Amino acid sequence: MIIVLKPGATQAEIDHVIEKIEAAGCKPHLSRGVERTIIGAIGDESALRNLPLEILPGVDQVLQIQKPYKMVSREFKTEPSVIGTGGVMLGGKRLHVMAGPCAVENREMLIGIAKQVKAAGATVLRGGAFKPRTSPYAFQGLEAEGVRYLADAREETGLLVATELMDPRDLELLDRHVDFIQIGARNMQNFRLLKECGSVKKPIILKRGLSATIKDLLLSAEYIVANGNPNVILCERGIRTFEDYTRNTLDISAVPAIKTLSHLPIIVDPSHAGGRRDLVRPLSLAALAAGADGLMIEVHPNPEEALSDGPQSLRPEGFATLMEELRRLAAFLGREL
Amino acid sequence: MIIVLKPGATQAEIDHVIEKIEAAGCKPHLSRGVERTIIGAIGDESALRNLPLEILPGVDQVLQIQKPYKMVSREFKTEPSVIGTGGVMLGGKRLHVMAGPCAVENREMLIGIAKQVKAAGATVLRGGAFKPRTSPYAFQGLEAEGVRYLADAREETGLLVATELMDPRDLELLDRHVDFIQIGARNMQNFRLLKECGSVKKPIILKRGLSATIKDLLLSAEYIVANGNPNVILCERGIRTFEDYTRNTLDISAVPAIKTLSHLPIIVDPSHAGGRRDLVRPLSLAALAAGADGLMIEVHPNPEEALSDGPQSLRPEGFATLMEELRRLAAFLGREL
Amino acid sequence: MIIVLKPGATQAEIDHVIEKIEAAGCKPHLSRGVERTIIGAIGDESALRNLPLEILPGVDQVLQIQKPYKMVSREFKTEPSVIGTGGVMLGGKRLHVMAGPCAVENREMLIGIAKQVKAAGATVLRGGAFKPRTSPYAFQGLEAEGVRYLADAREETGLLVATELMDPRDLELLDRHVDFIQIGARNMQNFRLLKECGSVKKPIILKRGLSATIKDLLLSAEYIVANGNPNVILCERGIRTFEDYTRNTLDISAVPAIKTLSHLPIIVDPSHAGGRRDLVRPLSLAALAAGADGLMIEVHPNPEEALSDGPQSLRPEGFATLMEELRRLAAFLGREL
Amino acid sequence: MIIVLKPGATQAEIDHVIEKIEAAGCKPHLSRGVERTIIGAIGDESALRNLPLEILPGVDQVLQIQKPYKMVSREFKTEPSVIGTGGVMLGGKRLHVMAGPCAVENREMLIGIAKQVKAAGATVLRGGAFKPRTSPYAFQGLEAEGVRYLADAREETGLLVATELMDPRDLELLDRHVDFIQIGARNMQNFRLLKECGSVKKPIILKRGLSATIKDLLLSAEYIVANGNPNVILCERGIRTFEDYTRNTLDISAVPAIKTLSHLPIIVDPSHAGGRRDLVRPLSLAALAAGADGLMIEVHPNPEEALSDGPQSLRPEGFATLMEELRRLAAFLGREL
Repeated sequence: MIIVLKPGATQAEIDHVIEKIEAAGCKPHLSRGVERTIIGAIGDESALRNLPLEILPGVDQVLQIQKPYKMVSREFKTEPSVIGTGGVMLGGKRLHVMAGPCAVENREMLIGIAKQVKAAGATVLRGGAFKPRTSPYAFQGLEAEGVRYLADAREETGLLVATELMDPRDLELLDRHVDFIQIGARNMQNFRLLKECGSVKKPIILKRGLSATIKDLLLSAEYIVANGNPNVILCERGIRTFEDYTRNTLDISAVPAIKTLSHLPIIVDPSHAGGRRDLVRPLSLAALAAGADGLMIEVHPNPEEALSDGPQSLRPEGFATLMEELRRLAAFLGREL
Repeated sequence: MIIVLKPGATQAEIDHVIEKIEAAGCKPHLSRGVERTIIGAIGDESALRNLPLEILPGVDQVLQIQKPYKMVSREFKTEPSVIGTGGVMLGGKRLHVMAGPCAVENREMLIGIAKQVKAAGATVLRGGAFKPRTSPYAFQGLEAEGVRYLADAREETGLLVATELMDPRDLELLDRHVDFIQIGARNMQNFRLLKECGSVKKPIILKRGLSATIKDLLLSAEYIVANGNPNVILCERGIRTFEDYTRNTLDISAVPAIKTLSHLPIIVDPSHAGGRRDLVRPLSLAALAAGADGLMIEVHPNPEEALSDGPQSLRPEGFATLMEELRRLAAFLGREL
Repeated sequence: MIIVLKPGATQAEIDHVIEKIEAAGCKPHLSRGVERTIIGAIGDESALRNLPLEILPGVDQVLQIQKPYKMVSREFKTEPSVIGTGGVMLGGKRLHVMAGPCAVENREMLIGIAKQVKAAGATVLRGGAFKPRTSPYAFQGLEAEGVRYLADAREETGLLVATELMDPRDLELLDRHVDFIQIGARNMQNFRLLKECGSVKKPIILKRGLSATIKDLLLSAEYIVANGNPNVILCERGIRTFEDYTRNTLDISAVPAIKTLSHLPIIVDPSHAGGRRDLVRPLSLAALAAGADGLMIEVHPNPEEALSDGPQSLRPEGFATLMEELRRLAAFLGREL
Repeated sequence: MIIVLKPGATQAEIDHVIEKIEAAGCKPHLSRGVERTIIGAIGDESALRNLPLEILPGVDQVLQIQKPYKMVSREFKTEPSVIGTGGVMLGGKRLHVMAGPCAVENREMLIGIAKQVKAAGATVLRGGAFKPRTSPYAFQGLEAEGVRYLADAREETGLLVATELMDPRDLELLDRHVDFIQIGARNMQNFRLLKECGSVKKPIILKRGLSATIKDLLLSAEYIVANGNPNVILCERGIRTFEDYTRNTLDISAVPAIKTLSHLPIIVDPSHAGGRRDLVRPLSLAALAAGADGLMIEVHPNPEEALSDGPQSLRPEGFATLMEELRRLAAFLGREL
């Protein structure tokens, strides 16, 4: 950490800063310029980070040098992590596509769509049993019943299943019945939920919050890892900006950025990012080209009747066609799908 | 709801849209222009809102006319609501200031600061027992112990107390021991927590999320009200923008906007919005001038040693001086503090 | 245009709105619901768009149906436009890469880099003679001298050249000496400059502003086209968001969105979007995959010494390697480079 | 400037950085930690700022310490500047309100409104002769004729007049006929226009761009000052965010922030910020409370018929009432209006 003093800071002020640095177990290193003195704090920054050094008298700015996350960083582990379960491992050469309806609506529909996305090449069935809806009057999901249908679909098709966790009280249920546990964008900083996810070993798909920086996303991943579960898969799904043609703005740069900053796998959700069915194909292709380890795509047998997110859902046939194209692109890029 | 068809939509497509509208219990009303046909759906929009009409063949755009929230709207209740408990009622002529440390750090400190903010004119002591921290390595709060200290401070000083709820499993504890339950910005769309808050009668202080529109905030309030608890106090605390001099950007327009759109009280948190001690005064004055019903201000006996948010905390003396100024401004504005 | 009245609007208020609509040459069409009356204005919206209908007594909302731009829209021209000059035509099967230094620094360097980017497959040399720098103390470009060097580089290599116009007084000079005239992001709403660009026939590369929506970008293109120059090439170069790892956030969705909304070609500038050399490759691949018609890439012989934007510039060898990869991807996507 | 090296940077890499620092006339100061070496560059940062140090081998981050602007900073001039002309001086105890129509529409209307705003207490008449309109089909202003009418209104009423400059070719005309020259938000980074404004002595009202940080705004002011004109008045008029209830988001914190960072006066434009007539009053009050030196308010005799920005314009009577309230608030705040 570097503490930049104001021009004209007094010796007493400088001494006070030095004292704080030493009390936190770091070694101060002074550099006196013509105008200002700068103090480097050498050692482990984490103890200092909790101190409000910027308000000490005489201090102008405090600059952090070390990243605030550790275990999820590339410095901590230089090789990419390959994370998953039951043969569906993300982060290696093989790409995976998770597909299915936004919400589990009934057993037949779910099993029908599961067979179709499997036939098209998806390896994970996604479907919401607990639905985070912005309106209290919208369909909130089948809850435990939906989880049961997911387990049924898994049994019938052999697909692994992924669903969203919204409440710590449902963790046990999901841990028992599903293969991937998803944390939605609106819960990315629900720190209690993150901590709880540290208590299981199931891979957690952590979606980026609508106003979360890449650093925030990695800190949220650190919460899960630091609490005991190293199996985190990141998911870019669009951030909130002033652009309103799309539902959100897919931050495609986050894919290579995260590959540089972290060893964790990163997938992309083109359905929520664009919010429009016709954008799913170009955004999926772009995601693969940018280096994503997989995709999460909404597919519904009849989007017109979908209880949630119909406008951004592909039909099974459209999904199958897209998968063909993605498979060829993956091969072109030296990966497999 | 208004459904705008594409130029050249066929009669079959028009009929299909009409069918959907009627099936949802609304009455279609056609208007044929030279280029396009437009269909108004007359009746209760809420049934239609869950249908993805925009992807029906021939449809170009769908425009919503009714607001997606009801019970929190001014149409539902034209008079401002006055909400609170135990003599601290927000939304009327009298303004209230909630003050205290970001985090409850220990019993002595809390009671000390409680006495000071009370002497200065605050009516509610705020202090976090459960702390939502972006880093898993930062101080996470004293939890249940902190709640106990809040209850002690209440007993010693007579101040009401407010603290943040992060987990549905803690609701019972807070409902028993504190007077105002706060939902933090990062949990504004933690829908399970919102629903749970509908099951109690305690006033809920709902903070605006970092990327939440005013409409989103009102929808989150609607969650609580629709689930049974009409006692919601809104709190503007800054949104995330590209500006980085401040921690967040205080959306001062949200105060009069919410007064127009909703009957709920609205308070402002200048400490989190600006993230800088020297901005607390001007932002507090601006908030009152814009019509806020109260303020939530961080005060710490020794900000240099604060375990959380030191840079934005006032010292007790600074707070007392500010309160003097706010009291005079309130009187000038025809309100009381 | 649709005018939604407030519940309880009086007949006099309704008549007043109707009068305004008729005065603007449109035909009103009433639809009376239980709660509200809605008036559709049938005919050419443009006359109405300049009227502040939303403040007429009794009016609640005004919804626009027609797009505010015409000549650049897909409705106006359903086939994609192929725009360019001297064999470099954008918008067709063939992709083009424009490459070169951020700023023209001297004659030798420019001709050297021109030869290298040509050898690698670029068809246009880009280089700033007039530089829009945020600091008045930064290098502002060689101005007219820089334009002369560009003309020299063109003569020596046969590459076409592109440079930025910042001032209407320089248009004649650029029109005489360069092949593509660029309007920078910060001038996207410099309406006088846009109008002036309507007076020439040279293709204009219009970069998206940092806070411009896709609609704003298309309206700025409309300015040029409506003033007489149909040759506009759009360029996505990143928008400003809260994310700070990258210089800007590349809005990759803008590429397919613009393909749907407009007939104009769209290229991507991965150098300015990411602001980091290591992001140029993944963002370039993503841009092609998303359907871009070309790229604009910064290349500098010695980025360490660049007078502008060194951190995001590729070295010539890195550019040549990237071009190889882009050429293969273009072929895979059924295009040519 | 501080250069943070990567863990494991070689001695050759360190030497290379030192060489660059020395070549730029600064003195390097090394600080070797356990993990990393950090180099402070002591001296004038401006020479270093143009070098892309972040891409030198072995460099991890470059941190700037000095502000990129000088002459507009508080360090350069610790006392607030009082800037204006002909008795209308901004930045002192006395506040000023500039009022008038968005666009000059005709002579009679302008003189009529001038008399009314003068009677209400405005000291400057604002009105656009050259209008920056996002649509090429919208009214573009009366241009030179509009400037003449402003001069007439000035003669008739004694009010000073302010109007916007959009093109360097119009500067002479405005310099001759108006008292304050305005640079609009969309031209805040039209650097040629800024430079040109440095060649006159008229006070320049510089509006903040829609995606400009406070630092960007100050750098744009620095352009004008560094080019010879010290008379710059800053104007906060809202930034672009995801919130869509308001036209823009008024960044009220910018007022006290700019007071801390710069000696220049700062005024607020509540009309453009909110884009809604009913927000003008609360935002004006908030601006004064936050410390603004003045306001710029749109007033139109008949907003329903305004050729530009009708929805946000006050009627003269509404303006007079607001002025009464502002005058009382100014007195309360220890200022004059």
